[in-house]
Amino acid sequence: MGERHAYDAGGQGMLGYRARPEAPNGAALLVIPAFAGLRAFEMAQCDRFAAMGYDVLGVDYYGDGWTAADMAEAGAAMGRLNDDRRTLLARTEAALAEIGQAGRKVGAIGFCFGAKAVLDMARAGDLDAAVSLHGIYDAPPFETVAMPPVLLCHGWNDPLATPDDFEKMAAELERHSADWHALCFGGTGHAFTNPDQAGRAPGMGYVEVSARRTWAATEAFLSAHLT
Amino acid sequence: MGERHAYDAGGQGMLGYRARPEAPNGAALLVIPAFAGLRAFEMAQCDRFAAMGYDVLGVDYYGDGWTAADMAEAGAAMGRLNDDRRTLLARTEAALAEIGQAGRKVGAIGFCFGAKAVLDMARAGDLDAAVSLHGIYDAPPFETVAMPPVLLCHGWNDPLATPDDFEKMAAELERHSADWHALCFGGTGHAFTNPDQAGRAPGMGYVEVSARRTWAATEAFLSAHLT
Repeated sequence: MGERHAYDAGGQGMLGYRARPEAPNGAALLVIPAFAGLRAFEMAQCDRFAAMGYDVLGVDYYGDGWTAADMAEAGAAMGRLNDDRRTLLARTEAALAEIGQAGRKVGAIGFCFGAKAVLDMARAGDLDAAVSLHGIYDAPPFETVAMPPVLLCHGWNDPLATPDDFEKMAAELERHSADWHALCFGGTGHAFTNPDQAGRAPGMGYVEVSARRTWAATEAFLSAHLT
Repeated sequence: MGERHAYDAGGQGMLGYRARPEAPNGAALLVIPAFAGLRAFEMAQCDRFAAMGYDVLGVDYYGDGWTAADMAEAGAAMGRLNDDRRTLLARTEAALAEIGQAGRKVGAIGFCFGAKAVLDMARAGDLDAAVSLHGIYDAPPFETVAMPPVLLCHGWNDPLATPDDFEKMAAELERHSADWHALCFGGTGHAFTNPDQAGRAPGMGYVEVSARRTWAATEAFLSAHLT
């Protein structure tokens, strides 16, 4: 089990979550949360990957460990940061600096808006492996340089990332990443890895079989590129 | 190791390949070849799945075990059968009848034109699990009924199945299959599972990492639905 972990992002205090492995595999991993901020679901993922040997930092991109009380609050906070993608990137890069060590590979997995943050890091040329879980694909206002290996796990009915959005993202990856692949899931919308999202609105929510396939592919992908 | 196996398809003699498991897992599997007919690559796949416990029939859809001497011959033979999708379906359904036993589940994997044949079987409501490996997605001249679980493994640069073709196929699966998913591979074109296709024309040929991901997903998918 990890513990809350304070770090700095350009003068803004961040409160993340640090899960250290008992049997290190030599690699580090950032876990970047969905738009409500770093909550129990993402911290549980940090613990799970630490148990596999990764040195894990659960990322705070809002500051002071802020989490939303409800969806409206989360949407408003996300909107502000989404309008300032360079700050979003600077904050996740501060997390990368916090976990980085010379010669050690670092991957990142992100959920929803956190997956957009992972893709922005990849676009900036950061990371040794990037995993987007039900991510949002619109490009940031900065140019994409060479991307690391990328895995997308994508619900084909995601109202926040349509088939056309997926096709655009794939074309961007094809131009910039030497190793990318995507899992596209039928009967699956947004937020499908999160059991807390069961029974939500249409186009949203947990799909057990898609979550299972996602974790199998994610674990294989991270292991191949980081260890 | 299996052996050549003669069977009948509506009066046309077929020469397939039968690989029986030493330790049966209770399920059967059809392996449907690419457009050159049933050759060493596909027979090796039959043996490999038999070693996992499947009772396997490698399918002949041309008759008398015919294989093409070269690509031009293969293209011509495929063209004739492609113009007669009902005959293609009847011939693969004869293979299904040959391997079928009451109460036993049957899956199919197909390569290229053989993947089109698998998808046509799925469209006809056949099979308990269908796997398309670098398949061709154009719909046949008969209506799709309820489809079984389907897995597509797809090279994003496949000139024979463009991103738009993929999107149409996904929409068809979304309407008819309660469990489908797809793996889309970057830097990958057609025929990527076949080591014999290394160094072929652009948009064609073996990609080791995509082949490895394909087999992992295929084995998990078949095991989940058939055993």
